[in-house]
Parts: sequence; structure tokens; C-alpha cells
Amino acid sequence: MGAEGEGGSVVIIVMQRGSSDDDIRRIEERLNQKGYKAQVSRGVERTVIGVVGRIIPELKDEMEVLSGVSEVLRVSKPYKLASREFKPESTIVKVGNVAIGSDQVVVMAGPCAVETEEQVISTAHAVKAAGASILRGGAFKPRTSPYSFRGHGVQGLRMLAKARAETGLPVITEVMSTEDVETVAEYADILQVGARNIQNYNLLDRVGRVQRPVLLKRGFSTTYEEWLLCAEYILAGGNNNVILCERGIRTFETGTRNTMDLCAIPVVKKLSHLPVIADPSHGTGKWYLVKPMSLAAIAAGAHGLEIEVHPNPDTAWSDGPQSLNFENFNSLMNDIRAVALALGRRMPEPAKTTASA
Amino acid sequence: MGAEGEGGSVVIIVMQRGSSDDDIRRIEERLNQKGYKAQVSRGVERTVIGVVGRIIPELKDEMEVLSGVSEVLRVSKPYKLASREFKPESTIVKVGNVAIGSDQVVVMAGPCAVETEEQVISTAHAVKAAGASILRGGAFKPRTSPYSFRGHGVQGLRMLAKARAETGLPVITEVMSTEDVETVAEYADILQVGARNIQNYNLLDRVGRVQRPVLLKRGFSTTYEEWLLCAEYILAGGNNNVILCERGIRTFETGTRNTMDLCAIPVVKKLSHLPVIADPSHGTGKWYLVKPMSLAAIAAGAHGLEIEVHPNPDTAWSDGPQSLNFENFNSLMNDIRAVALALGRRMPEPAKTTASA
Amino acid sequence: MGAEGEGGSVVIIVMQRGSSDDDIRRIEERLNQKGYKAQVSRGVERTVIGVVGRIIPELKDEMEVLSGVSEVLRVSKPYKLASREFKPESTIVKVGNVAIGSDQVVVMAGPCAVETEEQVISTAHAVKAAGASILRGGAFKPRTSPYSFRGHGVQGLRMLAKARAETGLPVITEVMSTEDVETVAEYADILQVGARNIQNYNLLDRVGRVQRPVLLKRGFSTTYEEWLLCAEYILAGGNNNVILCERGIRTFETGTRNTMDLCAIPVVKKLSHLPVIADPSHGTGKWYLVKPMSLAAIAAGAHGLEIEVHPNPDTAWSDGPQSLNFENFNSLMNDIRAVALALGRRMPEPAKTTASA
Amino acid sequence: MGAEGEGGSVVIIVMQRGSSDDDIRRIEERLNQKGYKAQVSRGVERTVIGVVGRIIPELKDEMEVLSGVSEVLRVSKPYKLASREFKPESTIVKVGNVAIGSDQVVVMAGPCAVETEEQVISTAHAVKAAGASILRGGAFKPRTSPYSFRGHGVQGLRMLAKARAETGLPVITEVMSTEDVETVAEYADILQVGARNIQNYNLLDRVGRVQRPVLLKRGFSTTYEEWLLCAEYILAGGNNNVILCERGIRTFETGTRNTMDLCAIPVVKKLSHLPVIADPSHGTGKWYLVKPMSLAAIAAGAHGLEIEVHPNPDTAWSDGPQSLNFENFNSLMNDIRAVALALGRRMPEPAKTTASA
Repeated sequence: MGAEGEGGSVVIIVMQRGSSDDDIRRIEERLNQKGYKAQVSRGVERTVIGVVGRIIPELKDEMEVLSGVSEVLRVSKPYKLASREFKPESTIVKVGNVAIGSDQVVVMAGPCAVETEEQVISTAHAVKAAGASILRGGAFKPRTSPYSFRGHGVQGLRMLAKARAETGLPVITEVMSTEDVETVAEYADILQVGARNIQNYNLLDRVGRVQRPVLLKRGFSTTYEEWLLCAEYILAGGNNNVILCERGIRTFETGTRNTMDLCAIPVVKKLSHLPVIADPSHGTGKWYLVKPMSLAAIAAGAHGLEIEVHPNPDTAWSDGPQSLNFENFNSLMNDIRAVALALGRRMPEPAKTTASA
Repeated sequence: MGAEGEGGSVVIIVMQRGSSDDDIRRIEERLNQKGYKAQVSRGVERTVIGVVGRIIPELKDEMEVLSGVSEVLRVSKPYKLASREFKPESTIVKVGNVAIGSDQVVVMAGPCAVETEEQVISTAHAVKAAGASILRGGAFKPRTSPYSFRGHGVQGLRMLAKARAETGLPVITEVMSTEDVETVAEYADILQVGARNIQNYNLLDRVGRVQRPVLLKRGFSTTYEEWLLCAEYILAGGNNNVILCERGIRTFETGTRNTMDLCAIPVVKKLSHLPVIADPSHGTGKWYLVKPMSLAAIAAGAHGLEIEVHPNPDTAWSDGPQSLNFENFNSLMNDIRAVALALGRRMPEPAKTTASA
Repeated sequence: MGAEGEGGSVVIIVMQRGSSDDDIRRIEERLNQKGYKAQVSRGVERTVIGVVGRIIPELKDEMEVLSGVSEVLRVSKPYKLASREFKPESTIVKVGNVAIGSDQVVVMAGPCAVETEEQVISTAHAVKAAGASILRGGAFKPRTSPYSFRGHGVQGLRMLAKARAETGLPVITEVMSTEDVETVAEYADILQVGARNIQNYNLLDRVGRVQRPVLLKRGFSTTYEEWLLCAEYILAGGNNNVILCERGIRTFETGTRNTMDLCAIPVVKKLSHLPVIADPSHGTGKWYLVKPMSLAAIAAGAHGLEIEVHPNPDTAWSDGPQSLNFENFNSLMNDIRAVALALGRRMPEPAKTTASA
Repeated sequence: MGAEGEGGSVVIIVMQRGSSDDDIRRIEERLNQKGYKAQVSRGVERTVIGVVGRIIPELKDEMEVLSGVSEVLRVSKPYKLASREFKPESTIVKVGNVAIGSDQVVVMAGPCAVETEEQVISTAHAVKAAGASILRGGAFKPRTSPYSFRGHGVQGLRMLAKARAETGLPVITEVMSTEDVETVAEYADILQVGARNIQNYNLLDRVGRVQRPVLLKRGFSTTYEEWLLCAEYILAGGNNNVILCERGIRTFETGTRNTMDLCAIPVVKKLSHLPVIADPSHGTGKWYLVKPMSLAAIAAGAHGLEIEVHPNPDTAWSDGPQSLNFENFNSLMNDIRAVALALGRRMPEPAKTTASA
């Protein structure tokens, strides 16, 4: 359980008005058994018990149902390594000469799924020319239906490596299973943990013990606190290079694929020292919404973006409807650059040979 | 019910594989009774019935439970006057020389509640100097608890009118009851219908018959389609000057007061010709989140913003935690201007005498 | 603001570790200005300030953004008259010889909308014969589209009164506007405030000053606490006869019209002394789901049910898909009776002449 | 992609009013490339294209962004093996002499986490005596925080096997990782896939290839359709013995741990032939809400329940607040039996030696 005495974490137990001395004594004992220190202060109206020690999320619930307890209030966050209180200076994750978490706007772009060598290499050249810093592409694909295309696996990883060799772009790709972590880490520069695996704790444990940065997508219904607790799993394993990615949450609104919660960006930057980027492709599900939401994410303070680009979205094997073609991606990058500069951020110039939109 | 023959609206009824001729005949009769035209096309696999006429939202549900029906699919939107299909060119709502819905970024700013004449007038001067075009302020306040301050009523309207006389800024203020519509319309330049009254249909009817623009806030759990149907109530009453305002929806996330759905902005601009602005004060509930979300809303394409400003937020009678002081508002306006110009939009320069942040 | 000294209500302000004496003094002053008493207790780790007085919901937010404050925790509920703490014994609302809130299972049944005299009277006879105690029927109808049938108004109220005269069943019907409250109260035995008007505070104020029980439906996105605060509006007006009604909330799931939150029933019975019933017709939106959810609601402890019944649901002017015909209602009532008796509850026997299903 | 010609699955593409012949031809070609058959029917108002073949969920999105397309409507469900259309008779999963999916009410009960041999054996005896048919207990525990107790692993499995040997109760326990599937299947009679792993597709694949029934919990934000697609993964692997379990979804309401969606029970029983049970312990998070929600689930038609029971919930290592002690479990079982019998269901009598509540 690891209750290393570190002080500071606090839970407050408020007793009912008529609570007995016995109730209070029993709660003190329980807390002591669990390795916590209890500080009782008896007021005129009510008695309040402060609890010091490393707080686990469920302590609140456990105390709340005990006899004589009126309410239990948690003061401290249940995550530690991920918190800005623990590490005030912002973390910058370095991949080659790309610095994620700095004032540089980092764009990761590429196809949803790696389909063919030609497709991934032509896309890599195109996104690099437009100013992207990292190549994305899926080799292991989580699919809602067992009958959909589920990725080329290791063969896809090899195509990504070839595209990196040709363009110099570092590569990010998803890992879905503990059994694949070693293999994916061999080929990829950044491991991506997808929204559906955010609470696959065995996978989080495993990527926490690997020498590769990890991009952790927020789940469909993951709160800010839970998201940071998932990051804590990776950090607790010894891997400090975690990048968070907002990609839309599930709400009652079905007019878009997900509801992008852009406010997550400033909130998480306040709670944590980790870099935060946004994925407007999955966040919106429609290519024509990618531009406004990309610009909005940068204006909200995102350290970067992950964007799906395909040579011919209409024929993409997966996620075509939300993929940009090269021309639209170029146009998007120009507008991102304009907003970034207006707000005092930095962004690489596009290659000379690229036609501006 | 108003089923004026206008053609074009379409619902498709898909029959079950074994459906009988009797089932089909009965459905045709039902549709005819309701004033719809039915077009039956018998396929090898299934029979499909197209329905033409003005579609009401519940027609789908009504048909779905009939014998022999497999599924009912709605092609057309149930709103008409609010749709871009009906009116392709964007609506620009003019209030004095302010054009809401144009490329001009319009900022409406002022206190949550009108407290004193001095408070509202000093705020009006400050927000005007910083570049705001319209003064906001609440005289009738919807409050979650009956024990909270519920506004000065007509006395508050008079203070707003005085602030307008002193500064020249048009005034927007909320109306909560059918019985107050006439009075509020006498004092205000724009009537605001709040999130809690979005489906107070009697109120929508009433503001639809008044000669004042109406700002219609999205409700806590209102879909895009329902929101536009609420606007349709006002338009159907004869009032064409409706402004939509995204102010955050309710989701599982409790880390912010609401979850701002900024994607609503490009989506609603595609579905409708009406202008759309954003309210990051209510959308976030915390003053330090107002700036990133204001910038994000403008980058996403919002026609303007509604922002709470108070001379001394710590002592505000309501919504202090989400109100900006004058200095922070100034700083925000400078950044909004930078983003607006970067994206080819227009925004008034601040007054000379205003210190830049 | 009404901070009548009543003691007991408590908010706890937790200061940051390095907070200054100035910070603490400033907070004390602020609280005093607002009429609260502050109790400061300085701990080794942190200083904690207890606040006593009638707590308004927004006090937490107001304190949270002040300098030196780490977190603000609310101990007390912001509603008072509606709380079981204030009134431990359960409220029983009596309408004629029907006791809502007792161990009697009370069923309110009838058509969604009053269509014709014949329709409402035949339905009244049928539901009475099956064991229903109260007749429901809509004369003023809130509709998502302005083009749907919106009810017969006063003429509909007269038809309901006639059905009452013929059958002896008390009548419940919806009121949508402050301007109609007096008229509806003249004809109806119970006034219904619908989900869409749950935060129409002027309407809540008005029905709080009338001599008729009020059934208050939970809104689409109303929390338990907000729901009880809405009830508080009515109670604060002097009307103690409030009945709560769970009718489904809005969630991400679109497979049913709403998501019935049946756990609301035991939770609200614990928090409040007011009776709670369920509306499985709106809660599910499909007639074939009404039976399982009616039985579930009674098993969960609901004091009663509100159910839509129509002589011929296929031709209903509104909500046909979720209405039961007479035969299905009879069958439902038999099963409800079986579950009620199995759990030690009471329910009237059906009339002799009714064929059992 | 597996588009085995099976006919029947249908998507309908509705073209825009002015769509060109070229648009239509291009869509036909695209569909042919993907192995679908297109049936074009040209109407006066619009052209509609029917698509036949095995439909994958994303086909709708892919078609929707193509030139000339107005809307794409899906008629068929994207799951097949899990659908009642495919297999009309209800599946009964047999574990020893327990028949899950029949008219027998099956209760699975035991501690959240296996703590000690004594704890699990004493609980097994107690729940058996009260009428439970299956013993639950966690050896591998998914925990929100990396610092919480994460289960005894294989040692815990051995304790469960010992409790089975002593009481004859079959055992259900969770498996979290592909790497543990073989081991868990060696000890357990039913494998449980938890809410957090519902879209861990590699795990679903693996348990689909094992000779053990699988209980599949609904995820926090899983729709009915997605849930059945997850079951489809297991069925497609060759394992037909899948049991569904509703355990509460995540909504805006924070007054309970989750929001139990009991309507899922009748809905899923209509869509699928698989058995459905409910877990009111996780669904509510509070022991005093377990009884009303258990009764409600049975009344709604659940085939059984999974309930957390602990000899001394106050000292439980996990989920104590939602665990019943032996006395409360006994009392619950008596009430479940009463409701079950009232509705014509069967349930085993408690052992003679058990004191009734």
C-alpha cells in the first residue's frame, strides 16, 4: 500500500452533532490501524478530525459510512508525482529536437491507420513539409466492431520506421496490449495509450517501465482527477515522460463524435506539470471541424496537436471522415502558425517547397 | 399544427423483412390522416416508405412502434426558419452600430448582477474603454437557492439605462417571466433568455412577438437540434433577430462549473444562419479560465463573447468567482484582439486612455 | 438574503500551507460582512476556518478564489425546509382519500394530452376500474417543436373536470406559465410542474403561494440537490404539499428516450421527507418498457407512479409510442399489486367488472 | 474485413436534392470496392441508395462526408452473433447446476477483494446459507490509484478454489490482463471482465478462446450497442457463454457512485439472447442503497445479481462502504425471494440453519 510518511495529505472527517466519544475513539483507532495520524478538534457545534498521511481515493468513502460521521471532505489530491504541487516547474518531454511542453507548438500528424508503405511515406513527406514535427500512424488499431480492419501489427511498425528513416520525423504509435509493449517500444519514439485503455492498469504499469515517452489519451468518461491518477501509474513506474492528450469526452450531445473539453487544457496545466496536447480529429469526428477546434485548442494553451492526415481520406481504411487531405492540412498549419505567433508562441516555418493554401 | 404544404421534409420508414401489405396500407392511411404524402418503394429485401410534409420531431417515435415497422429514419431537420437550408446567407443582428454575426468580434461585458448605480456605471466606462461594444448586467436573477439575492428588478433596469445614457453602450439583460417581457423590452436593447428558461416555451413565444433582438443561451442539457428548435419558437413568432450563446453544458466532469462545448460554434454556424457567441464566465465558473476559453471561442469562430466584469469581484453579490476585474479584462481584450486580427477578423481599438496590460 | 440566525449550517475553509495572518483576517472580515460567524482553528499543518450561518450554494465558490485559500468544503445541505433533518417524519400529501407518501401505492394514469371529452372520460373509467387513484391529462403541453399540438388549454381543463365529476377521480395536470396558475388551480386537484420548467423560478414561486399540492418533476439534468432546492422554492412560499417525480435524466445513452435514475428514489427519501413517485412513460419513451420500469420503481420504494394510458395509442395526438392501451394497463396493475403486496405495501383492489389480464 | 455475403444488413444513403449522376456513380464504385452491393432508387425529390452487406459501424461516417450525400441512415445493427434476430431463443449459461438466463434468480455474492482464507471461506458459507448460488471474490483488482491494494493475485485464486471445495459454490473472479487469462481460467468457473476493460479488445479476444463462461460488465460510458459489440468480440472467438452485467453508468449526478441504468435490462433482453444480471453494489456505492436497487433490478427482469458481502464491511480492504454484512444480506435475500415469487420466478430456499431476518 506504500503509506510512506510524507505528511501534508489531508482528509477532514466532520462528525454528526450528537456523535459520542466512543464513535470518535473508534475512528481514531481505525485510522491508526491504516497508518494515518488523526488530529481531533472538538468545536462547540461539531467535532472535526483531520487525517494526515498518503491519501488513497477510497478513504473518503470508507470513513463516510462509519457510525457518528456526518461528512468526509478531502483536501488533498490523491495523485502526487503528477501534481504541480510536487513538481512546480513544467515538464518538457524531448523527442529528438522536439520539445513537447515548451512554448513551441508541436504538431503530430499522419494517417489513422498505416495502410501501405507508399501511403505512410507520402504522408510523412507532406506533413513534414507543412511544418509537422512528429509522424503518427496506427499499426495496432482498437475497433468498436470485431469485423473492422484491426491494423497491420508489426508489419505496420516497420513501415513507420521506414518513413522515419526517409523523413527524419520521430514516430508515435498506439500500443494496446502488455504483450506488445516491448515490440512497439523498439520501433516507436513515443508510445500512445488510447482512450479505451486509459484504465487498463496492467498496460499503464508496463509502459511505466519502458524508456520511451508515453502519450496518454483521456478516456471517454475520465475525470481530470482520474486522468492524472492514470498518469501517476506511469510515473510511479519510473517513466517521467508522460504527455496528456484531450480527445473529447462522451456527453448527451450526439451531433459530434465526442465533445471536446478544451477547458481541460488550462485546468490540467494548473493541476499538473505534464504537457497537454489536443486531438481534434477524434474529438470532432468530422474533417471540417478539425480546423476550428485545432485553432481553439492552441488558443486555449495546448502544447501541441495530434491530427489525422491521409493522401485520400475518401478511401482511408479507417477514420477517413475525420482525416484532412494534404491541402487542407497545409491551410490548417498556416492558421495555427498565425494564432501561435499572435499569442507569443513559436512554431517551425513550413518547408520552402510547400505551396501555401 | 400548421402543416402548410411546403414539401421537401422527409422521413423514411423501413419495414421489417416479413411485413404484410396490410401493414403498409395501414401506415399509408395513418400518414394521410396526418396530412403527409407517402411514397412506397418495394425492394427485394425490404419495403421502404418515404414521407413528405412538415416533419414534427415525434413523428419518428410514432411510426416506430407500428406493426411491421423495423426502423424510422429522419432525413430532414425539424426546424425550418432557423436552418441555413432555408436562409443560406448569415443573419447579422444590428444593435446601434454593432453588427453581431459579421466579421467584427463583439464583446458584451459587465457585472453579473446590477448592484448599485456606481458599480454599473463605473464598469460600463471601464469595459467601453477596453473595447467592449455592449453592456451586460442582471436585474432579474435566476438563482439555484430561494435564499440568494434575486436582483433589483425594475430598479436595476433603470440603473442599466442610466449607464447606457452615460456611455452610449447598448444594454443586454435577462428576462425570466412572460409578465416582465414588456417592461424589460422598454429598457433593454437585447433581451437575454437564460439557460434555465431555454424550454420555457411561453417565454419564447412572448419574446418572439417583441421588437428587440433576443440572445438565447443554450440549456444545461440542450442538444444542437433542440437549441435550434427553441430559436424556431422565437422566429416563428416573427422576431428574426436571434443570437445564440454557448455557455457550457452539464457533463460528468465536475472540475469546472460546466463543460464548454466550443465545437457547438462551428457546428451551429453550419446548421443555421444565426450568429453564435460564447459565455466563458458561466462556461467555466472560474475567472482564471475565462481568458483561455475566450481566446479559444474566438479561434473556433464565435461572433462574440459575453463576459462578466466587476470593479471588485471579491465583493460581488453574485458570480464573483468567475468575474474579471478591470485589469484582467483589459489584458484579455488585448489578447482577443491579437487572435482576431491573426484570423482576419475585426475588432474595435481600445480607447486611448486605457492602459494596456 | 435572509441570513436568519439559525446556527448549524457549516462551511469549512481550508487555508494553504503558507497562508498569512492577513489572508485569514481578510476572510474573517468578509464573512462578518455577509452575516456569518467565523471560527478559526490554527493547526500545525494548516489553518481551518469554520463558517456558521445559513449557507447559500455559491458561498463555496466565492471563498475558493480568495487569496490564501486552498479549498472550501461544504458540510451542510443548502436546502432546509425540504430536508429530513428539518422535518424527520415523512410528509403525506392527501388528495381526497388518497394518501401520497404512505405505504399505499398511488397510481396516476390517463392520456398524455386531453384530446376529446370522450377520450378523457373513457380513459378515466378504464384506469379507475384497473385501480388507479388519480386521473392525469395535459391541457397545456410543452412541445419541443413550435409546430406540434400544444394542448386545448382551458377547454381541456373543463374536460378533465367533467371526467372527475363522472368518476370521482381527482385530477392532476400541468401548468406552464405564471399567468395560468390561478386558472389551473381552479380546475385541478394537483398542479404539475414539468421537467422543462424545473428552474422556472417565477413559476415555482407562484405555485408556492397556491392552495393545491404540486408535483415537481425532476429536470433533464437536475441533481438531487438542485431538485430539492427547487422544492425549497415552493415550500418557502408556504405550500407544504410537494410531491417529487423521477422521470428520467439525460445521459449519453440514446437507446431510450431518457435514462431512468431509479436510485433517486431511495436517495431522495433519505435526504427529504417529501413523497417520491416515478414516471416510467417519459422515463423510457416506449410502451413495452413501461411495465418493467414501473415494477422496478415500486420495488425501489416509490410511493406511486404516473403512467400514460390512451384508448388507442396509435392515434394519440402526442406521446402515443409510450402510452399503454387499457388491456396493457390492466395487466401492469396486476403485476404492480403483486410486487406491492410482496413487499408489505397496500394497493386498492381493481373494480369487480374489470377483466384481469 | 470479412464481408462474407450474408445479405440483410442495410445502410441507406440519402442524396442531396441537387446531387449529380457523377456523385451517385462515384458512390456506387466506392461501395463495390468495399465489397457492398448498391441499390439506387431515383425519387422525384431525392435519390436514395440502399447498401447491402455486412455493415461495419464506421461505414455511416465514411459515406456521410462524400460529395452529394445528404445523410446516411443505418438500418441494421452492427453486431450479429449477439443479436436476438440471429438467435431468437434465449441463451442459458450453465455453471454446475446453476442456470443463468432461465426463470431462476441467480445471486453471486462474496467479498470485493479476497483478503484472507478465513474471510473468503466464512463469507462463502454465509452467502450459501442465505441462498446465493455463486461465490464472487477479487484476486486481481483494478484500482483508481496505484497506491491502493491491488489484490493477492494467484494466491487469491487459490483461496477462492478452497472456498469452492468447502461449500460447493462455483466461483467468479475478474481477469484484467491477457497474460493472466489461462491462469484465472484454471481456478475460476466464470471469468469476469470489468467495466474498465470493456474495450480492452485483446482481452476480449483472449477470453473468447477459453472454455469458461464470461461475465461482461458494461463500461462507465458504454452504449447498449457498443456493449453488444464487445460481447460480439467474445462470441466471434467461439465462446458462446457470455453473461452481461449492468453496473451503473457515469452521468452528471454525483450523489451516487454511478447511475444504475436498470432500463438496460429489458432493452438488452429485447436486442440480445444473452442473459443479463445487475451489480447494485458498484451501481450505487452505498450499502444502504443495495437493497432497493437489488429488488428493482429483479422486478425489471434481471436474471440475477452480483452483490458484495463482507464479514465486517468497516474493515474491508476495498469497497467496504458498498458491502453488506451477513445479516443485511440475509434480509435482502428474503425480500428478493418475495419479489421473485410474486412475479412467477424461481429462487432457491435458504438453508434451514439460517436465521431469517
